[in-house]
Amino acid sequence: MPNSFGKLFTITTWGESHGAAVGVVIDGCPPGLPVSAEEIQAELDRRRPGQSDIVTPRKEADRVEILAGLFEGRTMGTPISLLVHNSDQRPGAYDEMREKFRPSHADYTYQAKYGVRDHRGGGRSSARETIGRVAAGAIAKKILALAGGVETRAFVTQVHDIMAPVAALEKFPTLAEVDATAVRCPHPATAAAMIERIKAVRSEGDSVGGVIECRVRGVPPGLGEPVFDRLEADLAKAMLSLPATKGFEIGSGFAGTRLKGSEHNDAFENRDGRVRTVTNRSGGVQGGISNGEELVFRVAFKPTATILQPQQTVDIHGAETELAARGRHDPCVLPRAVPIIEAMTALVLVDHWLRQSAQNRTFKF
Amino acid sequence: MPNSFGKLFTITTWGESHGAAVGVVIDGCPPGLPVSAEEIQAELDRRRPGQSDIVTPRKEADRVEILAGLFEGRTMGTPISLLVHNSDQRPGAYDEMREKFRPSHADYTYQAKYGVRDHRGGGRSSARETIGRVAAGAIAKKILALAGGVETRAFVTQVHDIMAPVAALEKFPTLAEVDATAVRCPHPATAAAMIERIKAVRSEGDSVGGVIECRVRGVPPGLGEPVFDRLEADLAKAMLSLPATKGFEIGSGFAGTRLKGSEHNDAFENRDGRVRTVTNRSGGVQGGISNGEELVFRVAFKPTATILQPQQTVDIHGAETELAARGRHDPCVLPRAVPIIEAMTALVLVDHWLRQSAQNRTFKF
Amino acid sequence: MPNSFGKLFTITTWGESHGAAVGVVIDGCPPGLPVSAEEIQAELDRRRPGQSDIVTPRKEADRVEILAGLFEGRTMGTPISLLVHNSDQRPGAYDEMREKFRPSHADYTYQAKYGVRDHRGGGRSSARETIGRVAAGAIAKKILALAGGVETRAFVTQVHDIMAPVAALEKFPTLAEVDATAVRCPHPATAAAMIERIKAVRSEGDSVGGVIECRVRGVPPGLGEPVFDRLEADLAKAMLSLPATKGFEIGSGFAGTRLKGSEHNDAFENRDGRVRTVTNRSGGVQGGISNGEELVFRVAFKPTATILQPQQTVDIHGAETELAARGRHDPCVLPRAVPIIEAMTALVLVDHWLRQSAQNRTFKF
Amino acid sequence: MPNSFGKLFTITTWGESHGAAVGVVIDGCPPGLPVSAEEIQAELDRRRPGQSDIVTPRKEADRVEILAGLFEGRTMGTPISLLVHNSDQRPGAYDEMREKFRPSHADYTYQAKYGVRDHRGGGRSSARETIGRVAAGAIAKKILALAGGVETRAFVTQVHDIMAPVAALEKFPTLAEVDATAVRCPHPATAAAMIERIKAVRSEGDSVGGVIECRVRGVPPGLGEPVFDRLEADLAKAMLSLPATKGFEIGSGFAGTRLKGSEHNDAFENRDGRVRTVTNRSGGVQGGISNGEELVFRVAFKPTATILQPQQTVDIHGAETELAARGRHDPCVLPRAVPIIEAMTALVLVDHWLRQSAQNRTFKF
Repeated sequence: MPNSFGKLFTITTWGESHGAAVGVVIDGCPPGLPVSAEEIQAELDRRRPGQSDIVTPRKEADRVEILAGLFEGRTMGTPISLLVHNSDQRPGAYDEMREKFRPSHADYTYQAKYGVRDHRGGGRSSARETIGRVAAGAIAKKILALAGGVETRAFVTQVHDIMAPVAALEKFPTLAEVDATAVRCPHPATAAAMIERIKAVRSEGDSVGGVIECRVRGVPPGLGEPVFDRLEADLAKAMLSLPATKGFEIGSGFAGTRLKGSEHNDAFENRDGRVRTVTNRSGGVQGGISNGEELVFRVAFKPTATILQPQQTVDIHGAETELAARGRHDPCVLPRAVPIIEAMTALVLVDHWLRQSAQNRTFKF
Repeated sequence: MPNSFGKLFTITTWGESHGAAVGVVIDGCPPGLPVSAEEIQAELDRRRPGQSDIVTPRKEADRVEILAGLFEGRTMGTPISLLVHNSDQRPGAYDEMREKFRPSHADYTYQAKYGVRDHRGGGRSSARETIGRVAAGAIAKKILALAGGVETRAFVTQVHDIMAPVAALEKFPTLAEVDATAVRCPHPATAAAMIERIKAVRSEGDSVGGVIECRVRGVPPGLGEPVFDRLEADLAKAMLSLPATKGFEIGSGFAGTRLKGSEHNDAFENRDGRVRTVTNRSGGVQGGISNGEELVFRVAFKPTATILQPQQTVDIHGAETELAARGRHDPCVLPRAVPIIEAMTALVLVDHWLRQSAQNRTFKF
Repeated sequence: MPNSFGKLFTITTWGESHGAAVGVVIDGCPPGLPVSAEEIQAELDRRRPGQSDIVTPRKEADRVEILAGLFEGRTMGTPISLLVHNSDQRPGAYDEMREKFRPSHADYTYQAKYGVRDHRGGGRSSARETIGRVAAGAIAKKILALAGGVETRAFVTQVHDIMAPVAALEKFPTLAEVDATAVRCPHPATAAAMIERIKAVRSEGDSVGGVIECRVRGVPPGLGEPVFDRLEADLAKAMLSLPATKGFEIGSGFAGTRLKGSEHNDAFENRDGRVRTVTNRSGGVQGGISNGEELVFRVAFKPTATILQPQQTVDIHGAETELAARGRHDPCVLPRAVPIIEAMTALVLVDHWLRQSAQNRTFKF
Repeated sequence: MPNSFGKLFTITTWGESHGAAVGVVIDGCPPGLPVSAEEIQAELDRRRPGQSDIVTPRKEADRVEILAGLFEGRTMGTPISLLVHNSDQRPGAYDEMREKFRPSHADYTYQAKYGVRDHRGGGRSSARETIGRVAAGAIAKKILALAGGVETRAFVTQVHDIMAPVAALEKFPTLAEVDATAVRCPHPATAAAMIERIKAVRSEGDSVGGVIECRVRGVPPGLGEPVFDRLEADLAKAMLSLPATKGFEIGSGFAGTRLKGSEHNDAFENRDGRVRTVTNRSGGVQGGISNGEELVFRVAFKPTATILQPQQTVDIHGAETELAARGRHDPCVLPRAVPIIEAMTALVLVDHWLRQSAQNRTFKF
């Protein structure tokens, strides 16, 4: 089931970017949860096209419809079906892509794998698929909040070569701080520079990538299922399953490889009657299981593959040709990727919470 | 099934480091494959303790026994059961760990999750668990080789702050080049410096981490199952499911975030009648599906958590205390991790090959 | 994923009987398959309410909408999303069920399990859920047909105590013969008696059950995955996952328990150059794997739980009370269950065909 | 993973009847459960060859070895690995089967599917594979017992055409009553007749089948996961995954098809403050979910395929030939199948208990 994610809290997304609709089915949501369309819509609005002047100007209202799984405002333990109709379709804009493979897109590989593809806007490989993930993630985030104030916060720390200063990111940022700027970097000065850079590359018909950091506080110790379904392993999979991602690191990550063990180990202490670590180079996970500290991980995004410059390519007949890209796109995907990363994180956490609960709390001997 | 990995070529590992044995069951291996114990043993010998003077001196022969799944030297399509008995056990050496949590190990989180644990040598969280992965990976590697010369090659590119020069790693290294030195870096001068560093930190009772790169050549286009089971997503999960890993990147990875789209995109060309990319910043995967170029990814390992220096910690009663570590351990896990990374890579590829074949070649319309 | 079925050809159904819609997502459908809404509709029409004078008179057009997964009339290997809006809703008709548990329905158990339920028409436990199964099954049946003329034929052999004579069922009935009567028994005289009986019990406000037999011809040898995913095990699960089913038997079934081994064994012979069995008491499966003979199995359905007679029951507060059932229902579910059983059978077969192909045809050694 | 069963409490069996050993890995067992080898052995002894004069005289001690997953007598939440070495091997006795397909065995279908097979004693298709199921089931039964006195009791109700009188089976039989006779029918007079029949057919070189009933008391309401993983659906799959089974029915089963709804429905009443049914034609399951009444189901076994009479067959080259069977076998598998059915039932129940607990008790809103 390549279009499903999660073992007990499972989402299945469907839909092509220029088909009738995109959607998601959520199976395994606990019963009794109050859910409103507004709560889901609020998250969708954070990933919506046209939300600011540094994202794609496509006009998609992305209005969510709840088709099943709720009764009198509460979940019933039955599958929840959510749908968003596609509206701003200009299929003619994609005629060139019917025959030509866009560099660093999925056109060639979908053709090679399936022998057939919807060439319009990337079809199934479009980031539009993540609408279902964000809608489902809104429900997962609500569960986490009600389960005891677990908060998931992603934010942009790097765009191109502009990085937020380390000191500026030490405290857990508020949602308002993150959403204060269109680029979703909670450090205002850096955000301003990032926005300027994005506008500059857009004016060149070019694009940029960057890094998003995600933190979660309030995670109880015990989430994660060794040896294969370690918490960081499932987070890594979740993040690398997103379009345009090229890397994942948790805690000290790649930089930690330059420390010695004596510098890197997180000493334990007893703080307020709980076992805590003095530092958090582990990033909240040890041996694949959450240790109760803040989860901290980062995701690398490549520059948007769509650029408004002519590029060398090959067509479906194997002939070398040139692609004169045009159309509407994001010069930098990171601002809109922030809610997507939060959604995937929440989905992983709820799934592991259910798994942990099943194995370790069902029977008492 | 947290101890299983793979959808169609599935391995299930079992065993604690100081129990009777560790092992693996492989379900879904195609029938008719010739397999010998010697082929499996050859891979196990590459991860064996005591193989050189920079790894742990523990004496474990790690002899594999084949208990089921083969008949007259060939697989039958039935589960393959492989087992290695544990031999060099000094359980008394671990008495201190019964009560004290080792910093940056899994002692605390296992205790928090399960309420009970085998404290001897990490029990289930020990890297000894990877014996089953390597044994199963030997079979997966053989399938890949017979399927058309697909070759998986991992090697150490960084230890602590010593990095192999980029130019030295441009060509695909041979197995002999990798295994020529105890540290498994194919650049001899760098390898010598790495070995010296490892010996130096060991003499201080300290440890170091580093980076392993893995490349695969001969991968056909079409492997990978969007949207969630993207090839890089499953590789990321496989790598982050290994002890001591903190990061994963594919192709341009984190460094690629500093390029513009016009610099980063891989132009297509027609080379020898096949669609090929001029550059390979994608790392062999586009849209979650292999494009026929070399797979290239890197994995970050933290420094070994076990060090021979006193450390501040807490015991199972919550009391703060000090841990006076001793015993035998690897001052740097990377040399022995190389065959493990190759094994996990081969397991992911065989699994995806089977999945791709099922969906796209079974029926022709 | 309790609302998903199948490992490689996976369906996920969603929807309550009196919600906005019911639907299904199909993941794993091979690419390139031509599919039309008409083909799916034809199967839905066979399970539609109001299709004859012996089924429920509810008016549901059950028009299928294809939302994703098709491009220019062909599947793309991406998820197929199908939806049917609910139209003939009389929620007020169910006010009594909000508080009272209907005997032998799922009202009490859903309340006990989930603590909340949509009481209108059974909600998720309604047979209306099977719309998604039948829609997905239409696609599976088309795959089987194109794969080489595999034909799935279910038909009613018993209603209450009226049974078709054994001799009348010896040959594989045509679709026309099955659908010739409203009761879908291919033996006209028996069908007439069954219809008369159904009308009689309906006039008493009562209901009846019966037996459906299903046969499949053209199945290649080799489908079925021992030891747990035996073909008959997955068929049994598929059938017992349907509302109102109480039994499953394959080949000689329960009657075969009265034979001796020497009477029961199916001797092998070489017929037309193929290994064949002289008799087919095995029902087309040996050791959990299809042997190329006709698949033959039977499913027992209990009498419809909804009856128009007062019944003793308990309400959600635990008070004993009486239920005065009314409303529209099927006095006998079997005629409409015939296409559902064919659908589930086709889903099992396509799934196993893909699995068999993956393991046994991908690599040749 | 065709050799795995269960979603959260998962067993994976491995081994051929004449290989080195057979075994099982249990993943998902809750931590802290006290388990001893003796408890597992007690169940294995109930399925052991040579236990009485009506079963196969093969001499297999079937001694279980615990290789992993226990520490100081308790489970740890890590995989439990259990193994039984094969001892009484007479591979020469099977030389004829290398080339000739035994009628109604799995020889032909394994050859057709895999192209290779271990012909000795059926290899993987041997009922010897169920050793792993029984060993794992012993642990599942212990969990059920500790969870609140849930008791699983299977017993033989029919051998050939000899049936226990209905009145004799009304009460829940004790283990002692079941095991009082070699045939495991708790009605002594019937048991004596069954034993006589089994001996008679054995003396003719023939075999017989029959029916086993299984009951479970103490099941809480709420187990079962609609719409596909209904409790009866998973029970049906479990039972049809056993060698030699041809049918499954729950509650009123096939006989219930002859009742009217007004005769068949189970009225609700309030008994001792709980919602109970007056009758139990549902067999303890409504809408796929346990209702707290006794689970009651029956399984049909065909006569043993191995008989000591010459049979017509075909060899692996397609030539028609005759098979002169000899060797040691069970003239009736039912007595030894009783503990296997209990094991599978317990495995299904523990798995569903964990699933129910995860979804419905983890979060409270």
